[in-house]
Amino acid sequence: MARFMDVHSGFQGVTAEQLQAAHDADLLIEADEGVHFEQAWLDPVAGKVFCLSTGPSKEAVMRIHERAGHATAEVYELPIEV
Amino acid sequence: MARFMDVHSGFQGVTAEQLQAAHDADLLIEADEGVHFEQAWLDPVAGKVFCLSTGPSKEAVMRIHERAGHATAEVYELPIEV
Repeated sequence: MARFMDVHSGFQGVTAEQLQAAHDADLLIEADEGVHFEQAWLDPVAGKVFCLSTGPSKEAVMRIHERAGHATAEVYELPIEV
Repeated sequence: MARFMDVHSGFQGVTAEQLQAAHDADLLIEADEGVHFEQAWLDPVAGKVFCLSTGPSKEAVMRIHERAGHATAEVYELPIEV
């Protein structure tokens, strides 16, 4: 199981409720791919969302986000952390 | 106290020891600005580092990273998390 950070752009003005709804949409289907989205952080001014997850592959993370309605191509595998 | 994510590029091939050394350099001086770097994750293939921190301002985070030798202009304030 690997760890990933993915980045979404264009989320300017998104509220906590909207972020929660997007996160819940991921959680609902993430088990299909063996992915788990642990946490998500939003900068509503820059419109950036960062999602920390674990899963079998970058592609599995991308498939869940795509099916949940917020696809991103920007997914980084993080084998090293301090 | 606010929460921030900053992003560094160009860290291709960096090792766990090198990331730890860079993180330690931040920790050594972070109190000067009331900043705390909680965690850092590295994708050594894409060369991306993500640092999660708390502090009084984006500029305070940037000053610590700059003094520690790894400046970045890409710092996001994260008032919303799930």
